[in-house]
Amino acid sequence: MKRTTEKNLMVFSGRAHPQLADEVAALLGTDLVPQSAYEFANSEIYVRYEESVRGCDAFVIQSHTAPINEWIMEHLIMVDALKRASAKRITVVMPFYGYARQDKKHRGREPISARLMADLFKTAGADRLITVDLHADQIQGFFDGPVDHLMALPILADHVKEKYGDQSLAVVSPDAGRIKVAERWSSRLGGVPLAFIHKTRNIDRPNETVANRVVGAVSGRLCVLVDDMIDTGGTITKAAEALMAEGAAGVVIAATHAILSDPAVDRLKNCPVEEVVVTNTLPLTPEREFDKLTQLSIAPLVARAIREVFEDGSVTSMFDGHA
Amino acid sequence: MKRTTEKNLMVFSGRAHPQLADEVAALLGTDLVPQSAYEFANSEIYVRYEESVRGCDAFVIQSHTAPINEWIMEHLIMVDALKRASAKRITVVMPFYGYARQDKKHRGREPISARLMADLFKTAGADRLITVDLHADQIQGFFDGPVDHLMALPILADHVKEKYGDQSLAVVSPDAGRIKVAERWSSRLGGVPLAFIHKTRNIDRPNETVANRVVGAVSGRLCVLVDDMIDTGGTITKAAEALMAEGAAGVVIAATHAILSDPAVDRLKNCPVEEVVVTNTLPLTPEREFDKLTQLSIAPLVARAIREVFEDGSVTSMFDGHA
Amino acid sequence: MKRTTEKNLMVFSGRAHPQLADEVAALLGTDLVPQSAYEFANSEIYVRYEESVRGCDAFVIQSHTAPINEWIMEHLIMVDALKRASAKRITVVMPFYGYARQDKKHRGREPISARLMADLFKTAGADRLITVDLHADQIQGFFDGPVDHLMALPILADHVKEKYGDQSLAVVSPDAGRIKVAERWSSRLGGVPLAFIHKTRNIDRPNETVANRVVGAVSGRLCVLVDDMIDTGGTITKAAEALMAEGAAGVVIAATHAILSDPAVDRLKNCPVEEVVVTNTLPLTPEREFDKLTQLSIAPLVARAIREVFEDGSVTSMFDGHA
Amino acid sequence: MKRTTEKNLMVFSGRAHPQLADEVAALLGTDLVPQSAYEFANSEIYVRYEESVRGCDAFVIQSHTAPINEWIMEHLIMVDALKRASAKRITVVMPFYGYARQDKKHRGREPISARLMADLFKTAGADRLITVDLHADQIQGFFDGPVDHLMALPILADHVKEKYGDQSLAVVSPDAGRIKVAERWSSRLGGVPLAFIHKTRNIDRPNETVANRVVGAVSGRLCVLVDDMIDTGGTITKAAEALMAEGAAGVVIAATHAILSDPAVDRLKNCPVEEVVVTNTLPLTPEREFDKLTQLSIAPLVARAIREVFEDGSVTSMFDGHA
Amino acid sequence: MKRTTEKNLMVFSGRAHPQLADEVAALLGTDLVPQSAYEFANSEIYVRYEESVRGCDAFVIQSHTAPINEWIMEHLIMVDALKRASAKRITVVMPFYGYARQDKKHRGREPISARLMADLFKTAGADRLITVDLHADQIQGFFDGPVDHLMALPILADHVKEKYGDQSLAVVSPDAGRIKVAERWSSRLGGVPLAFIHKTRNIDRPNETVANRVVGAVSGRLCVLVDDMIDTGGTITKAAEALMAEGAAGVVIAATHAILSDPAVDRLKNCPVEEVVVTNTLPLTPEREFDKLTQLSIAPLVARAIREVFEDGSVTSMFDGHA
Amino acid sequence: MKRTTEKNLMVFSGRAHPQLADEVAALLGTDLVPQSAYEFANSEIYVRYEESVRGCDAFVIQSHTAPINEWIMEHLIMVDALKRASAKRITVVMPFYGYARQDKKHRGREPISARLMADLFKTAGADRLITVDLHADQIQGFFDGPVDHLMALPILADHVKEKYGDQSLAVVSPDAGRIKVAERWSSRLGGVPLAFIHKTRNIDRPNETVANRVVGAVSGRLCVLVDDMIDTGGTITKAAEALMAEGAAGVVIAATHAILSDPAVDRLKNCPVEEVVVTNTLPLTPEREFDKLTQLSIAPLVARAIREVFEDGSVTSMFDGHA
Repeated sequence: MKRTTEKNLMVFSGRAHPQLADEVAALLGTDLVPQSAYEFANSEIYVRYEESVRGCDAFVIQSHTAPINEWIMEHLIMVDALKRASAKRITVVMPFYGYARQDKKHRGREPISARLMADLFKTAGADRLITVDLHADQIQGFFDGPVDHLMALPILADHVKEKYGDQSLAVVSPDAGRIKVAERWSSRLGGVPLAFIHKTRNIDRPNETVANRVVGAVSGRLCVLVDDMIDTGGTITKAAEALMAEGAAGVVIAATHAILSDPAVDRLKNCPVEEVVVTNTLPLTPEREFDKLTQLSIAPLVARAIREVFEDGSVTSMFDGHA
Repeated sequence: MKRTTEKNLMVFSGRAHPQLADEVAALLGTDLVPQSAYEFANSEIYVRYEESVRGCDAFVIQSHTAPINEWIMEHLIMVDALKRASAKRITVVMPFYGYARQDKKHRGREPISARLMADLFKTAGADRLITVDLHADQIQGFFDGPVDHLMALPILADHVKEKYGDQSLAVVSPDAGRIKVAERWSSRLGGVPLAFIHKTRNIDRPNETVANRVVGAVSGRLCVLVDDMIDTGGTITKAAEALMAEGAAGVVIAATHAILSDPAVDRLKNCPVEEVVVTNTLPLTPEREFDKLTQLSIAPLVARAIREVFEDGSVTSMFDGHA
Repeated sequence: MKRTTEKNLMVFSGRAHPQLADEVAALLGTDLVPQSAYEFANSEIYVRYEESVRGCDAFVIQSHTAPINEWIMEHLIMVDALKRASAKRITVVMPFYGYARQDKKHRGREPISARLMADLFKTAGADRLITVDLHADQIQGFFDGPVDHLMALPILADHVKEKYGDQSLAVVSPDAGRIKVAERWSSRLGGVPLAFIHKTRNIDRPNETVANRVVGAVSGRLCVLVDDMIDTGGTITKAAEALMAEGAAGVVIAATHAILSDPAVDRLKNCPVEEVVVTNTLPLTPEREFDKLTQLSIAPLVARAIREVFEDGSVTSMFDGHA
Repeated sequence: MKRTTEKNLMVFSGRAHPQLADEVAALLGTDLVPQSAYEFANSEIYVRYEESVRGCDAFVIQSHTAPINEWIMEHLIMVDALKRASAKRITVVMPFYGYARQDKKHRGREPISARLMADLFKTAGADRLITVDLHADQIQGFFDGPVDHLMALPILADHVKEKYGDQSLAVVSPDAGRIKVAERWSSRLGGVPLAFIHKTRNIDRPNETVANRVVGAVSGRLCVLVDDMIDTGGTITKAAEALMAEGAAGVVIAATHAILSDPAVDRLKNCPVEEVVVTNTLPLTPEREFDKLTQLSIAPLVARAIREVFEDGSVTSMFDGHA
Repeated sequence: MKRTTEKNLMVFSGRAHPQLADEVAALLGTDLVPQSAYEFANSEIYVRYEESVRGCDAFVIQSHTAPINEWIMEHLIMVDALKRASAKRITVVMPFYGYARQDKKHRGREPISARLMADLFKTAGADRLITVDLHADQIQGFFDGPVDHLMALPILADHVKEKYGDQSLAVVSPDAGRIKVAERWSSRLGGVPLAFIHKTRNIDRPNETVANRVVGAVSGRLCVLVDDMIDTGGTITKAAEALMAEGAAGVVIAATHAILSDPAVDRLKNCPVEEVVVTNTLPLTPEREFDKLTQLSIAPLVARAIREVFEDGSVTSMFDGHA
Repeated sequence: MKRTTEKNLMVFSGRAHPQLADEVAALLGTDLVPQSAYEFANSEIYVRYEESVRGCDAFVIQSHTAPINEWIMEHLIMVDALKRASAKRITVVMPFYGYARQDKKHRGREPISARLMADLFKTAGADRLITVDLHADQIQGFFDGPVDHLMALPILADHVKEKYGDQSLAVVSPDAGRIKVAERWSSRLGGVPLAFIHKTRNIDRPNETVANRVVGAVSGRLCVLVDDMIDTGGTITKAAEALMAEGAAGVVIAATHAILSDPAVDRLKNCPVEEVVVTNTLPLTPEREFDKLTQLSIAPLVARAIREVFEDGSVTSMFDGHA
């Protein structure tokens, strides 16, 4: 008894950020698989799919936003349900990889939660991951299987280039550890100069204030301050102030992941920055929107990656060979 | 270079229910290991132990109460940190096993979250589990390793016996699926009669009310209505009413796990029950306390089990051979 | 070099119950794959397939009947041979799941053999399971992969309904722990009343006889006594007697798995029961057949499940969403 | 809370060959751990230990004799029960390794059951193996963990040397594939000549009788015909006849594992052999005893190996470095 | 969104023996996938594929020749890169299985490196193996998955038969442990006599020279001396000399794997042998070629096996059922 | 039968860098375990321990120097032999972690060899790792188990401080991606200024030379150029030249791992640097020694870490809580 094998793309979404998943599904020309998902009185999560998923090529999208443990657990439970319902392949799509910052032991007796997350998804039944702009590239190696690592840089940089490309620019890293990202921006923007902010302690007065020293020449330039994420915004807004104090012509902030925990919005509103450019890897509640904020959609990138994965195309080719 | 091997008991606690962990530690004559544990702005959890845990025999207590995903994730992260810090053996102590009710697929395309939890803890690094009154005994088999399954029955039943033993009793199960537990109570109370509540639908009027029919003779007896947990309290309070309607002399409710999600407290206060006896496997916030509620401590049971495990004694002997 | 992928259904059978496998294969319009299978002088089992199985979608049927360890080991060895011969996917079909009753530790220092079986099949190379009426639904969670759990209830209940549906019925569970099954029967038969048998000990004369007390009203009704399996038949025939003593109008026994170990047949022949309805998940030797016994075939159910699995259809839909 | 760690040797035995286990335990100065072990009516095996085994260093002895699947399954279930009861380390002692002859695929689509057995025991919870005279040394590599491979050669060869050492000897392999074993015998007996039996087919009359040709000089010598096991005895008795036909002065058969399946005893009784020397790795029922049969005990070897393992001594030193 | 599934054969080659891989690819009508592969200054290996491999059915050929650890590591790294680049299935093709001779512990405290290799490839991501003439058939059981074990015997034996079939032949094993292979040759050549070389020590002068005694009749016959591999050639050339001394009419050596480590070539050139027939499972540098050496290509065998695997055909059928 | 458990420290060394292992063993007051280790003619490695290792706490030291695949394979084989010889716990000590630089996919279809190494050692049997100054801290998360990550910074920085502490210093990173390390140096040296080298391409002349631009103020300061390793020395010597061109008062290079592949020594000799300070994590052949090179021993650090691990002390405390 023989049959030609068919593969069947199905897209699933957790409840954290349904707009993004809807947008991705629409771009793929399909609908999200309908499901029941709610919490029991004691906050345990229940999920059930309302259509047969047997044999499907499943892509399960969830945004790891606050309350992050809730949404990660929902993500894991969705994967378990797919595994037990005989999905053929399960790709976990996490536009923002939760716990990515705990990617090493900074001090003894800490967890490495970013590795733990990789292992939890593997255990639940994930065959592969799609994610965007990992806090450290090495996190790709935490998962025992293929990881398609997408980059928002083209989306963000093209926006900056179009809007500010005629000015004299500098690319600035807010932190010594992330200059590599700034280098990629510099290259994408045509080789503009680099700088970074070096936090120093006043040796004479230990336990006191930290100075943000600008390393590199920024005077007279519009500084593009780049990072992978903005959480409470403390570091990046202090960096913007230091740049203006150093004679920058202006500051634009660009980051992939707009966590925007309190008091990020206040800080960003009140700091000397012309524009804050982010993507929608994380949902943005209305009260976190503000005038200077521009949110670009990551959905076309994610949708194209899913299509390439489904059709055995090439994700690498989307980024000129980079991974 | 030879050394005599020593084993070193260390007790750890998550933040969900520190009172229980403190009580357990005190009974063991030790202190909880000091730790830093808090949430980052985006709700990611951070944990670090403040003492060396190298080579220790670790017992990690966390109560899986609401917000349950938060506390389970903290529990997992604590285990990961212990594994990476070279603890010799890691025993996860979960007085209430989160997601125990999703122990099978009731319908197609559901997860089996109780199995998933077992696998997540195994992956994080748990060597063994200690838990109390599982929703189904079969959950022992979900974990690939030793599970010490403790029973609160002796604690609860001795309280009931002492207080109501001179009356004519009946043991009642609120649900057809849990009569096995009622049988154990009946035997512990010296062979008193059994009954259960059978939910039926009125065939003439489908989609309408459900009747709670009492199966078994309860008239004139003080009914001990027993269950493993009380969540919103709907089933058990309806059962109490049905028993009174059937001529019961009174009702006492006994359950191990006092989840008491809204509106459980209101329901229990307003139902015709003399006393509600529970344990402290889950924390009880002050607003959930009420006059008729008696909370017995599970700590002596947990502490003794930890001691037996640490000293290679016998947990089975604590329950006359039952497991 | 590209090819369209084809999938190829192949059905294999152990030697325990070839009639059932033949019937399933016939319903699927295929033949069992020919094989050599025999025992060496020292009782080691040898198996070899006589056709190439490379790349096939294998369904391996074995009935876990006595000598059960022999047939389980043959089942495991068949899976190993398929794995090493490059079958693409291996579905283990066990109409009766051996060792299902040892699904938890009743007492300390017992195995959980039902979990062990799941792990042994996984280790041998099983990707998924198909089974019928598990002793406990939780056993689905013992296997790390998809389990298609089929229910014989529609087959059995439709037979009962057709033959006895015009009489006043009651559904009776022979044991407090299995009332849940009786509830499903009650619902399938249109909401007929429920009862169960409660075994009690005479407190005055310990170590003496056990009384079977009927809980629920059965007088004047034809009682359908339901269980998942009949092994030696002691419990169920005593239950039938207790029902008649309580004034039942008659008793019909229905069970999925007809183990019928000695002296089940004698007991059933001699007890006051009108009919014993079972399926053929286990083979029935001629000497175990008797007048009152009706054996319904499970083959259509198993064949349809295999077809749904092979064609990425829905097994859940066969049972109105239940699993 | 610190304690000095103690290790506690406990010896367990399946029901296949209790005499051997008793002898081993006695040599170790201990008793077998008491247990319940029996079969349910449908032939499922039940095992429970009657003493706490928590933290013990467990050695579980079972002889893989017929009905071999029964005893292997009991062995696996015993290991599962030990794992779940918190034994610290589990060493499986299988004096005869069941299914060792299926150690490779002789033909396509066969299992490799010897590897499967190794995996099944690993899955059940075995940490290490002790076994005697594997059919192929490579089977050591089938188990993912330490294997202590004991050799009966010293016991058997010393017996032969003492009794026949003053005669002119030859060592003969009954089969081309096992000459390596004969070489070890030759060396142990002081360098006596080797021969082997080569089975040939008559080319003129295919499908007809096979001739056993002796390769090597045996005339006038007492031939020690050596093998790892005697199953039905066909090969070895034909070999004995061929040796006598070739002018041997006499034949002595020596083998570690006395399977002696029918009609081995008849064949051995009726063949021109002076003595058949075996060990008790497998039990010998009284009806399989006969005059020429000498059974030497393997218990001292097994007991010493267990002691070395328990006390972190050296098993290698028992065999002059061989493994 | 549905698609018909296609499978896509891609052949990859390490740098150890590109000629063989090219020949295999050509026979399959495809090209090797282009790649970058080189060593960094500190000898770490770097590999990258220059085309998308997503979803492909990958066959990765590497010859385990000296420097063998280098080439095995390259092989492992190639598999890792394929796994992470989403190849669908990865078949490791190792015409010569490195470390096959360490397939057991000859002495205590040795590794079993052949098993280690199987595990390393499994860990890196190999789904299945194709290999030729394993040193021991049991090594098939070291890998947890399908192993297609090819035999060069037909290629080698047909060459010998054609060239020497009209002479009076004998098949000789150079070592007692490998007579099984000689038996297969004997059968393939139509039942010619067998012999083997037995190495003995002079008992009177221990620690002195070893004598090579011929067991079996070879006088007047052209001896085909067969082995799986020729490494330094010591054993086999001494065997050839012993055969000539015993009156052989001539000697032809046949072996699958031509390792030819120094001083194999000198020894073979200078020994009384008419022809040395080998295959190209290992590359042959020009300085190791010599007049009497005939190298037959294994590529047709490997190519056909790959095709059968890719097309779900039968490898077993290539060898009349043998495996 | 009870015994007090003893633990027994044993130190093993591969052949790559015996001096370091000897030094470590001497500091621990023990000897390296004697072993046989050599290569067969075809370059396969053979290892055997000459003493019983049963039950020991094994520390296996190997330096991953060129030929690195050779030494890594020896390391893996040593672990396999220890596992099979019943070592109780196996700690792999790799002062330099081979393949650490391939810690992520820089481009699509690359391996992540650093993760692969972690998995290979886990598979071989490693329970834990000790390593020094990983190329990226995240590599700790690649291993599924405890990793003790040691830092050479105190050793190197104290040497620099003592010798140059009275001068005006700057700490310089040779590369934008490694400024984090420079920050730690800056802090250890009391807060001296930071700089880094930014490689830029001349936009007008693509494909041409790269300029090394110094970002930060270095004029008039003695620059301590820091990195984790020096391989061919190209980057770091160009950096030294750039610093001198920028007006630095002098340059001192400090790095943990002295790979010193050709032409590193020539470059370092000929560049304007006062001293090159390294450790002996890798062996230094005499021809790679030169006047300006200072090699500090890492042995005391490694020995202390081993002692802490063996005695259940604290490795974290060796680095003030950092990990």
